[in-house]
Amino acid sequence: MATLTAAERRAGVTAGSSGNHAQALALAARLCGTRATILMPADAPASKRAATEGYGAEVVTYDRYAEDRDALARALAGERGMVLVPPYDDPWVIAGQGTAALELCEDVEGLDVLVVCTGGGGLTAGCAVAARSLRPSIRIVGVEPEVADDTRRSLAAGRRVRIDVGRTIADGQQVPTPGELTFPILQALVEEVVTVTDAEIAAAMRVLFERCKLVVEPSGASALAAVLAGRVDVAGRRVGVTLSGGNVDPERFAAIAGTA
Amino acid sequence: MATLTAAERRAGVTAGSSGNHAQALALAARLCGTRATILMPADAPASKRAATEGYGAEVVTYDRYAEDRDALARALAGERGMVLVPPYDDPWVIAGQGTAALELCEDVEGLDVLVVCTGGGGLTAGCAVAARSLRPSIRIVGVEPEVADDTRRSLAAGRRVRIDVGRTIADGQQVPTPGELTFPILQALVEEVVTVTDAEIAAAMRVLFERCKLVVEPSGASALAAVLAGRVDVAGRRVGVTLSGGNVDPERFAAIAGTA
Repeated sequence: MATLTAAERRAGVTAGSSGNHAQALALAARLCGTRATILMPADAPASKRAATEGYGAEVVTYDRYAEDRDALARALAGERGMVLVPPYDDPWVIAGQGTAALELCEDVEGLDVLVVCTGGGGLTAGCAVAARSLRPSIRIVGVEPEVADDTRRSLAAGRRVRIDVGRTIADGQQVPTPGELTFPILQALVEEVVTVTDAEIAAAMRVLFERCKLVVEPSGASALAAVLAGRVDVAGRRVGVTLSGGNVDPERFAAIAGTA
Repeated sequence: MATLTAAERRAGVTAGSSGNHAQALALAARLCGTRATILMPADAPASKRAATEGYGAEVVTYDRYAEDRDALARALAGERGMVLVPPYDDPWVIAGQGTAALELCEDVEGLDVLVVCTGGGGLTAGCAVAARSLRPSIRIVGVEPEVADDTRRSLAAGRRVRIDVGRTIADGQQVPTPGELTFPILQALVEEVVTVTDAEIAAAMRVLFERCKLVVEPSGASALAAVLAGRVDVAGRRVGVTLSGGNVDPERFAAIAGTA
């Protein structure tokens, strides 16, 4: 994490549907002795809200299908005199998320492919920068839900496309358009973005639970879902897969994985 | 694993309610090019049976409340000319289970206390031998379900006591009496055995799921349950806790953790 300015030490507000960022910011604010306010969709999983509040942050909710998150966040930050900390469209946040690939490449030699869950693109951009710099031949594949394929469409169009995001269990990936900062990085470094269905995500969550004994939320299991569903060419290759986020309570997990 | 004799290579049968042992034996048999037959309680979780059969073993069921497992296993082994591989009362099995503490003590320096889930006593005996040899001052605490406290009672009595095991969610710890080989080791090395309720186990499973993102079955979460419930004196101490087994499907997990 970057050193905070005096203003940043005062308070922070973030606008992210991604519970990992909310919790990280809440904890960072507490460690720095300041307060965080988190703007969160009203339909975010209860466990995300509870965990974020548990770290001492205030949670303000909005309707993700009717309201403009970014405008709300800017207004809230302005009113309260807070610093906005975006969940992905920020160079320090991108760099921080890239440490996942940094650690993976340090632990595992000779990766041929890295498959990353793509929402706003912060994790994908950061991981692509880190992995490519350590291993220039690595192939980076992003994964989005079928109904939230803004990055896939944007890469095909050669510009940031804004889509109407459909409903999906992968709430952390319900992003209408790639980030301003993340998109050029994805254009430069990502070979391909593939999509997965909710059923494929649910099946991957079940495999992770039953065979790996790991709790991974839908958005965080989409990369593995793409591999298991045969969307990524992995034959004979050494493949890294991100598992990002476990913000799901046992009841919701069972309801989702039970459909697999 | 020990080198197998020619007879052992032919086939193996085990008698254990503990799904970890069943799966390990099934896989070991496959790797050795032989067949395993597993004697399993009819009410064992479906995931234990499915995983065991998935590794290629044949599963034979019995009624844990009405039938004598050990007699059945001996009869089955005799009929089929198989070698009996007990789930805990065997020096090699005890030594193998002790590698959990061996690895823990290699990874974490300066442990003051090691809290271990106790069923037949194989894991506890093996971990006690390994941990005590590496760290003579370590305190070993066993944990049993309240209704299956055969080891606690046996240590108090100074001899192996046989109890009527009650119903508990911790099916891997429903053992009526400590093992012949494990008990003297526990007498020599275990300072204390404490008990936990099903509600305390469920609460520990929920904590592991929500905060550690780990799937642990009831029997495997009992040691953490004892710590969280304040049954073990941990203040100011460096404490190791075994998490042993994740043989539980998402639906059963939710049903159990939902009561916490």
